Amino acid sequence: MGAQRRAGPRCNCCAAEGSRSGWPTGSGTRRADAAAKAAHAALDAAEKAGRKVSVAVVDRNGNTVATLRGDGAGPQSCESAERKGCTAVSWNAPTSELAVRLRKAPQLKDIPGTLFLAGGAPCRRTASPLRV
Amino acid sequence: MGAQRRAGPRCNCCAAEGSRSGWPTGSGTRRADAAAKAAHAALDAAEKAGRKVSVAVVDRNGNTVATLRGDGAGPQSCESAERKGCTAVSWNAPTSELAVRLRKAPQLKDIPGTLFLAGGAPCRRTASPLRV
Amino acid sequence: MGAQRRAGPRCNCCAAEGSRSGWPTGSGTRRADAAAKAAHAALDAAEKAGRKVSVAVVDRNGNTVATLRGDGAGPQSCESAERKGCTAVSWNAPTSELAVRLRKAPQLKDIPGTLFLAGGAPCRRTASPLRV
Amino acid sequence: MGAQRRAGPRCNCCAAEGSRSGWPTGSGTRRADAAAKAAHAALDAAEKAGRKVSVAVVDRNGNTVATLRGDGAGPQSCESAERKGCTAVSWNAPTSELAVRLRKAPQLKDIPGTLFLAGGAPCRRTASPLRV
Amino acid sequence: MGAQRRAGPRCNCCAAEGSRSGWPTGSGTRRADAAAKAAHAALDAAEKAGRKVSVAVVDRNGNTVATLRGDGAGPQSCESAERKGCTAVSWNAPTSELAVRLRKAPQLKDIPGTLFLAGGAPCRRTASPLRV
Amino acid sequence: MGAQRRAGPRCNCCAAEGSRSGWPTGSGTRRADAAAKAAHAALDAAEKAGRKVSVAVVDRNGNTVATLRGDGAGPQSCESAERKGCTAVSWNAPTSELAVRLRKAPQLKDIPGTLFLAGGAPCRRTASPLRV
Amino acid sequence: MGAQRRAGPRCNCCAAEGSRSGWPTGSGTRRADAAAKAAHAALDAAEKAGRKVSVAVVDRNGNTVATLRGDGAGPQSCESAERKGCTAVSWNAPTSELAVRLRKAPQLKDIPGTLFLAGGAPCRRTASPLRV
Amino acid sequence: MGAQRRAGPRCNCCAAEGSRSGWPTGSGTRRADAAAKAAHAALDAAEKAGRKVSVAVVDRNGNTVATLRGDGAGPQSCESAERKGCTAVSWNAPTSELAVRLRKAPQLKDIPGTLFLAGGAPCRRTASPLRV
Repeated sequence: MGAQRRAGPRCNCCAAEGSRSGWPTGSGTRRADAAAKAAHAALDAAEKAGRKVSVAVVDRNGNTVATLRGDGAGPQSCESAERKGCTAVSWNAPTSELAVRLRKAPQLKDIPGTLFLAGGAPCRRTASPLRV
Repeated sequence: MGAQRRAGPRCNCCAAEGSRSGWPTGSGTRRADAAAKAAHAALDAAEKAGRKVSVAVVDRNGNTVATLRGDGAGPQSCESAERKGCTAVSWNAPTSELAVRLRKAPQLKDIPGTLFLAGGAPCRRTASPLRV
Repeated sequence: MGAQRRAGPRCNCCAAEGSRSGWPTGSGTRRADAAAKAAHAALDAAEKAGRKVSVAVVDRNGNTVATLRGDGAGPQSCESAERKGCTAVSWNAPTSELAVRLRKAPQLKDIPGTLFLAGGAPCRRTASPLRV
Repeated sequence: MGAQRRAGPRCNCCAAEGSRSGWPTGSGTRRADAAAKAAHAALDAAEKAGRKVSVAVVDRNGNTVATLRGDGAGPQSCESAERKGCTAVSWNAPTSELAVRLRKAPQLKDIPGTLFLAGGAPCRRTASPLRV
Repeated sequence: MGAQRRAGPRCNCCAAEGSRSGWPTGSGTRRADAAAKAAHAALDAAEKAGRKVSVAVVDRNGNTVATLRGDGAGPQSCESAERKGCTAVSWNAPTSELAVRLRKAPQLKDIPGTLFLAGGAPCRRTASPLRV
Repeated sequence: MGAQRRAGPRCNCCAAEGSRSGWPTGSGTRRADAAAKAAHAALDAAEKAGRKVSVAVVDRNGNTVATLRGDGAGPQSCESAERKGCTAVSWNAPTSELAVRLRKAPQLKDIPGTLFLAGGAPCRRTASPLRV
Repeated sequence: MGAQRRAGPRCNCCAAEGSRSGWPTGSGTRRADAAAKAAHAALDAAEKAGRKVSVAVVDRNGNTVATLRGDGAGPQSCESAERKGCTAVSWNAPTSELAVRLRKAPQLKDIPGTLFLAGGAPCRRTASPLRV
Repeated sequence: MGAQRRAGPRCNCCAAEGSRSGWPTGSGTRRADAAAKAAHAALDAAEKAGRKVSVAVVDRNGNTVATLRGDGAGPQSCESAERKGCTAVSWNAPTSELAVRLRKAPQLKDIPGTLFLAGGAPCRRTASPLRV
């Protein structure tokens, strides 16, 4: 899952787990554990940066694995995080980069379930829980 | 809750109750009373300004506490008011100011449940029901 | 609007304003004022009965005119109140009576937007704001 | 949050955080931390019981604070968990007990956002993160 | 479209146009004309029977061709009519008969978009606009 | 209801019934009759102009009174017509004029349930069914 | 995917692909090919049995991989098929068996996205496309 | 159905079946067969072009006849494909061309259910299954 991206106050942060090659099966760790750990780390990083965010970890099919609403985060922050995660996993790129693409293809943001705002990033589950 | 903001005819007005420090607990007044009083005051102010609006008061989690559909207000005015309230409380700023931010970050308005139109404002419950 | 109906703890109460003959037009009072007053009265009555409820006042077309979330009322109480109001206005009868009809016609409750639980009642706007 | 409740295979477990007195403010712990810890504990307990579940922790307003999809849990398990949590917090009772009430008042289950299946329970945040 | 079926006060009536053999193409009449005429006839019949209903005419794919909200009909009557129409066209039988089938297969009513209440009937467009 | 407005091929036309002064009560004509007649007239006008449209007539509260899907009209044409009608009735102006206002206030189009495309117009029910 | 299950006329058939062990990765066949082939086979079997159905193949996470609307199948048949598939994959059992369980636990059918009607069955992708 | 249109990585492709003259009735082939074959051909063409897409075939009323989620296609790809199909069939033109029209009439993209992104194209069912 990606490091904390910038956003406005009470913004949200999301994380798209799962690279193109999918989760390694047969690993000793539960997927839920890795997702929870990644969500927690992202929340901590955001707090240190003075940001109040929510976090979502979605798998490569866009299904949410874990969400965590940070204290003081805005009411829409969880759903925003899930959408950012879906966006990042759909194009396998950080949403901060994808937001730039909108200049050439503004209709991309009309795809249902997406959100082209910085804060989402693809990640890969490695031996250590999730690369953050 | 904020004073009546400008809008088109049959526009709506919303109010985001709850500052960052939350509602003071243990106060002698019921929260519902404060919200109802604030909604009523906003409707009166709008009428004096010749505007037909609906009002919504949402708490800091974005949950609606009170709505009031003004006589002659448009069919979508209540839902619009709730969205303005959610927007104001998410960034802790009036929606009139937030609408300006869209110039730099137009994707903000794609966050589900938001509406970047003037008319929403954060407010704080004080000794007197709500500062209007 | 009807007096407070019974329900479980943290239940909700709704009110279907508007008899078959509709709102009297040309009255000196704003409809919104009458609805707000009725909602407030219902909340007070519920509190005296030791119940934590939300209230909704809907017009005869099923559009919500006012909602008021009581302190400590459950998360779904507002939407429930609106559905009770729609149910009461659709059959022009209290939902407590309508719930009995389900024994003979159980599919009635599958009509979208209805809720056959006691707590909703039709009311008429008279000279005094609303008969409660 | 409550201990793991029984359910079918690939069932889900939810947790309604927040008693009537609300979260104690000013505590040293972040609410998100407590919710995440509770979700994790519930997932562990379920796994030891041989169950594949998802977990949701909702606050007393019915807003979701944390979700965790267990490995192998069914596709609807997260949404079910959130609904169980809303149900438990609305009546301040375990959903296993509430399911019994349906015999007398079967329409209760038509309240939007509820699910009267065992697995949800109210809990209280104490000095130690959450009583599980 | 079928004759007016019985229902409660302020009930609704729907009509599922389109037999299994589909609309005859190349007929001199517009489909919209036939649907509008059928809706009107149903509303007249209902009024003579002292009922306040709404009417919907759906084609064999379940798409609505015409709706007509009767004066004084309940707020949900149009959506109910559309669901009855979908139900009638799905099984090619009047909903009054289909409601009886629920005794043996009660889960049929959980199919999304259906409503097993009397008032819907399949019809066939013949030389004369619609057999009513 | 207004005359047929221009639009693309297979476009739709909507009509917002109800001026600010509301429907005259006590008139000899049923509202449904007037709405059906207006819808039919709009469809005829569109056909003469070589356009395949759907028509919706909404009352001043935004509730749909009549819809009519023209032969060959696009799949989304009915819902579009209803949104245009809501838009026209909210600002009491034709949508063709309202679309121009978006240049100054582009966020207006984010109000839920609206559609700022030409084809909707407010109308008034007079002695003759509807001024078209 | 299972063989065609019984249902009413114009019923639907769904298929829940994916056993507990998941799709074998690295197989020579595309998953989409296997799903399409299975959907086609189910449609053929239904036609031979004189039934007009739609088919859906969902993966073990409940995401739809393929749908096929049979000629003459009812309007809701596709969505029904997807729900049956989600139901079958959630409990890893045919929906015909699961429908029986409702006698003991009728609230199971209130889980969002499920449908307890015969016609859904879990299946496993083997060397040959899908065991039907 | 059209050949594969260009899009971003993990994009989707949709197909709007059904020209203005509708499906030829009485043909020897089932409509479902033609749709499935067309979907398969589109998926193959996309793969050869190195694209991971989903495909949807919709009829001229906008109802989906077949969907096929390609291996590795993004989570929103199926819904996007259905929307592109609806868009193409509404204006009877490829979505790549329609996207250009947005420059003159940007509000077109606010019509519910549409998506103005390249990848959708109208097609006609001929003697051979579908012209691809």
